[in-house]
Amino acid sequence: MEITKQSIINAQRRIKNLIHNTPILSSESMNKISGANIFFKCENFQKIGAFKMRGALNAVMLHSTKEIKKGFVTHSSGNHAQAVALSSKIMKSKAYIVMPNNAPKIKIDAVKGYGAEITFCANNENSRKESCEKLIKKTGANFIHPYDNDSVIVGQATCSKEIYDIYPKINLDYILCPVGGGGLASGTILSTKFFSPKTKVILAEPKNASDAYRSFVEKKLIPVKDPKTIADGLMTSLSEKTFNIIVKGAEKIITVSEDEIIFAMKLIWERMKIICEPSCAVPLAAVLKTKEVFKNKNVGIILTGGNVDLKNLPF
Amino acid sequence: MEITKQSIINAQRRIKNLIHNTPILSSESMNKISGANIFFKCENFQKIGAFKMRGALNAVMLHSTKEIKKGFVTHSSGNHAQAVALSSKIMKSKAYIVMPNNAPKIKIDAVKGYGAEITFCANNENSRKESCEKLIKKTGANFIHPYDNDSVIVGQATCSKEIYDIYPKINLDYILCPVGGGGLASGTILSTKFFSPKTKVILAEPKNASDAYRSFVEKKLIPVKDPKTIADGLMTSLSEKTFNIIVKGAEKIITVSEDEIIFAMKLIWERMKIICEPSCAVPLAAVLKTKEVFKNKNVGIILTGGNVDLKNLPF
Repeated sequence: MEITKQSIINAQRRIKNLIHNTPILSSESMNKISGANIFFKCENFQKIGAFKMRGALNAVMLHSTKEIKKGFVTHSSGNHAQAVALSSKIMKSKAYIVMPNNAPKIKIDAVKGYGAEITFCANNENSRKESCEKLIKKTGANFIHPYDNDSVIVGQATCSKEIYDIYPKINLDYILCPVGGGGLASGTILSTKFFSPKTKVILAEPKNASDAYRSFVEKKLIPVKDPKTIADGLMTSLSEKTFNIIVKGAEKIITVSEDEIIFAMKLIWERMKIICEPSCAVPLAAVLKTKEVFKNKNVGIILTGGNVDLKNLPF
Repeated sequence: MEITKQSIINAQRRIKNLIHNTPILSSESMNKISGANIFFKCENFQKIGAFKMRGALNAVMLHSTKEIKKGFVTHSSGNHAQAVALSSKIMKSKAYIVMPNNAPKIKIDAVKGYGAEITFCANNENSRKESCEKLIKKTGANFIHPYDNDSVIVGQATCSKEIYDIYPKINLDYILCPVGGGGLASGTILSTKFFSPKTKVILAEPKNASDAYRSFVEKKLIPVKDPKTIADGLMTSLSEKTFNIIVKGAEKIITVSEDEIIFAMKLIWERMKIICEPSCAVPLAAVLKTKEVFKNKNVGIILTGGNVDLKNLPF
């Protein structure tokens, strides 16, 4: 299936009354530091504290009443788990979330808070898969992959569409988002192609989990090995689907070091007085690293989420 | 001099193009937790990161060109220092700031960053006064008191006026702000009297620095003794001027413990994804402590500032 312009428009109509049209913030001091005019799309203020709500809700809502009754399954220790849990709750459905048994208590509590049923598994791919399959067999519930899913990608595409909706007020030269599994990156590429074709999409990735960068450069899908980064939302690998969209549509991928991520994150906290996750800070780190590219340009940055453990900050 | 309705309107006109009309945020999960409909006026997003910019800028701008040339003096280790420094810079004037020699480096750097000249003194009232007087004598600069000053109070009054400007969209039953020296509290009382007379003003104060509470109850000015609170912006005592406004205009003063402040602060960070100072969290702590008063009411809370040392968080 090809993702169409109309499918993004439809997704936006489908979810808009149930999510936040998040604010776009700018900061004089950030512009001064970066040399660019940056527009931060603040998905840290989104429901469940991250953009993942868009894709999960769109995917859930695209199911028939009969399927919705059966519930939804996913595996995630992060924002996608909360997103599927809340989306299911909103649709008066049931969510079954598979989480690694070493998941932080704060995330477990959040998912439970949305009324989801949690199944713990060992922290590896096989155990996750097996647990999901068992659950699906037992409950008949529908699996919602965090990114390898057209409905999810189309949902994430609504984020940048909201920026382009106020175009030409903000005529962006560049839009940046982080890349993990590639759901948001794919959505942003498609949305930009349809709604702001002059804007270039640049992806940003931690050096320590740079499968997207390597895949992009070598033009073949290379899964990540042993990712170790503070940007815990970006440790997953692209799928065939997201790889194909990214390799065609991204202008480039910039990788940044752990120190650069922490520096950018601290800057956002201190100068903008908002809380964002390490993953969020990766695009700003990319801008600060290659200032000459962005000098005096209008740059959109998607701040992807704000779910961070306050007891475990990197600064 | 009595502070008039017109003086607040004039102050707003005077400063509005040089400050932010800060956003008013609400949060479903905060409303659920508190039982009230809370509207947070986010002065943590104000220039210099705090409401103090309003009063300092209004006071500086009310001086003649000749006086502005001479510059401005104040003593403060906190947000007022930055506010006078930036206000002076904006007006192409000079700021002389007296700071205690144990002031945190981060605050010293911020004040220096705005081009102010810093004079260090011992950390006591006499030394502060003496240093200021010396500076005034030497430079001819004008002293701007952090709160015992009509122009400063009138400037702080513009904060709640911005809320009432969007009335009747938000018809507030209550407005809360913290009370330290009483500048913001006085401004809020006057602004409410003139622009939203049905709204009741409730002040919130740390138990460990409850001079305003005791003064209010005993109807006489009682200065604070040895305040020890995490809400470092609220350790000062009322002046005769602010006491008189507060005793006449406040509905009541609610005091809260250190634990209650920290709990409320963490809640704002985690649920709203914004950064606020401990002082900021005091009114929310007051609401959470006396939920029955605020149940289903429309409640405005002024989040006063967001300048916090990320290396030294209380949670």
